[in-house]
Amino acid sequence: MELAERCIDPSEALAPGSLVGILGGGQLGRMMAMAAARLGFHTRIYCERYDAPSFDVSGEFVCAGFDDTEALVRFSAGLDVATYEFENIPLEALEVVGGAAPVRPGPRALAVTQDRLAERRFLDGLGIAVAGYRSVETFGDLEQAAGEIGYPAHLKARRLGYDGKGQARITGPSGLGEAWRAIGGVPAILEAGVAFAREVSIIAARALDGTVVFYDLAENSHADGILQRSRVPATVPAEIGDMARDIGQKVMSALDYVGTIAVELFHLEGEAPGPLVVNEIAPRVHNSGHWTLDAAMVDQFENHIRAIAGWPLGDTGRLRNAEMINLIGDDIERWRDYAGKDRHALHLYGKRETRAGRKMGHVTLLDPADGGGPGRERR
Amino acid sequence: MELAERCIDPSEALAPGSLVGILGGGQLGRMMAMAAARLGFHTRIYCERYDAPSFDVSGEFVCAGFDDTEALVRFSAGLDVATYEFENIPLEALEVVGGAAPVRPGPRALAVTQDRLAERRFLDGLGIAVAGYRSVETFGDLEQAAGEIGYPAHLKARRLGYDGKGQARITGPSGLGEAWRAIGGVPAILEAGVAFAREVSIIAARALDGTVVFYDLAENSHADGILQRSRVPATVPAEIGDMARDIGQKVMSALDYVGTIAVELFHLEGEAPGPLVVNEIAPRVHNSGHWTLDAAMVDQFENHIRAIAGWPLGDTGRLRNAEMINLIGDDIERWRDYAGKDRHALHLYGKRETRAGRKMGHVTLLDPADGGGPGRERR
Repeated sequence: MELAERCIDPSEALAPGSLVGILGGGQLGRMMAMAAARLGFHTRIYCERYDAPSFDVSGEFVCAGFDDTEALVRFSAGLDVATYEFENIPLEALEVVGGAAPVRPGPRALAVTQDRLAERRFLDGLGIAVAGYRSVETFGDLEQAAGEIGYPAHLKARRLGYDGKGQARITGPSGLGEAWRAIGGVPAILEAGVAFAREVSIIAARALDGTVVFYDLAENSHADGILQRSRVPATVPAEIGDMARDIGQKVMSALDYVGTIAVELFHLEGEAPGPLVVNEIAPRVHNSGHWTLDAAMVDQFENHIRAIAGWPLGDTGRLRNAEMINLIGDDIERWRDYAGKDRHALHLYGKRETRAGRKMGHVTLLDPADGGGPGRERR
Repeated sequence: MELAERCIDPSEALAPGSLVGILGGGQLGRMMAMAAARLGFHTRIYCERYDAPSFDVSGEFVCAGFDDTEALVRFSAGLDVATYEFENIPLEALEVVGGAAPVRPGPRALAVTQDRLAERRFLDGLGIAVAGYRSVETFGDLEQAAGEIGYPAHLKARRLGYDGKGQARITGPSGLGEAWRAIGGVPAILEAGVAFAREVSIIAARALDGTVVFYDLAENSHADGILQRSRVPATVPAEIGDMARDIGQKVMSALDYVGTIAVELFHLEGEAPGPLVVNEIAPRVHNSGHWTLDAAMVDQFENHIRAIAGWPLGDTGRLRNAEMINLIGDDIERWRDYAGKDRHALHLYGKRETRAGRKMGHVTLLDPADGGGPGRERR
């Protein structure tokens, strides 16, 4: 289907002026709200924190916990559509909102992705490769799983993990006890370590009518479990891109997904079970897609809003090569350096408190001189 | 001065998290507020209307008239800097705000540009060409001025004109009475009609330290006094660009200007007093600079915020050729057409009421197939 031929079913598309509800008020919700505003939508944010970054760029907000049914009902009243900016929202909260307005992506995307074991099984069912894993409920399970999977391995809590939280790396039997304590002894999975050549992610969006668009693969580098840099294009062969898009397509179809999605992948050069294994699915806009704000025709946030509003998806064409650099914790102080540099687009999230490991902003460098390269410093 | 070498005087630059006050809540204030948010600033809007487009994208607002001193004082409390989105704000209001926070651009820019006669005299003083003009206080003045200037001529109210309002074109002596009634018999100037080849505008920004950056000249087409389309690059020789930048530089220096400015120019091919005569100065971000949102590295709104915050100015480099098309009145209904088109970036202003002549949104086409061209339809 040619992009230029996309058309809207008028009965499905929300007109500008409609009210979009966003659950979660962090930087992802904030950039979603700005994208919604750009299309003429009004937004209402639901967040537990009074100092949520989204509150700066939205006309309406409800500040309450996700277990506050009365507040959720108040939030939902009059919404034309609702969405969320992170996957750790209780399904019960989504059900309350869903009683008043369509919630997109649907609850199945959330149910699958907020439980790491369910996500592995979902991918298994689709025949999509993942690293070897075992379910772990008790310390005894962990010992047995480690015996089967070997080392290095990663113990990951099934729920509520993000940015490296709820995870522990284990290099040998003596590390099992510490890892178990580190994740708090909660239900988990043990995953085999994968000797990958690079981490890539595919950002895609799926419209209400099933149309799908993909952005160029990003190549990512992490430190301490937190994304540091993403660059496009990724240094992978074209067939790896095709394979990644195929995985994205399968995942979205199986979830009857509506909105922007991210699939994080490990690229293994010549090793089983490669060449691509899925690390994680994020049923939302994603940090590794922030480069699209400055270097793609229509960014991931706008395409998310377009999708949930029943609009045709926007042009994902890449205008320039780009490298996105996260400003984490005290990195925020580097705004002074970046502000004066050409070809650097600065995005600060307005967070009122700087904490170690907290994502405070990001900067996107267009046309990096050496074509980019994660982990390389070029100040 | 190389852009890459710009640096900040830390004593002048406002840190992210500072509070920016914006007088006026229309689409220009709205896009300013979004730019401010992107740099981590909080915003507070002052507007007379409860349904102002800016209120959707700002954390704080004061809704009151510009003659309400108490409300202006409340608005000003705690601001780190204040700015405005249109030039028809009473100077008295600016004085109140200026008592609490720096107002940028300064009051002189406003004083000069909100009175068309003062603006002509200011330009005369700088040796910058304008169309012939006469001051008109009475109908007798008008008859005499028309006798001296000839026809066609334009009668323009000295104050409160925008989008063609407060203006009347006169083609002969029989039209004088009607024109005088049309503008309500207020103090005015009569300007000689100019047979221009094209209308262009130069958008520039000047930092607190006097550094200046320019965007590429835009070529504009108007209908009924309202901007319809702007395209970049303009079809003018390089020396016309240099001449326009020189005019912009002179104007900004003379006003000790801080922020984004627009100078509208007529390009006359081979006629006196050309080749460039100034039509109007707008001491603010400008509709003919909206293309910068999608096709420049750093847009006019962000450079305005950078300037007033004492930051170094951002890279004005053009990423692509572009054509900006205003959606005026019922044009807003065409969002459905534009939403499905590649290379089109849609911006809707969230206005709750559609009225004839009201700017409801705009769309920017990147890489127009024929290089653009005002007035040409290519749907």
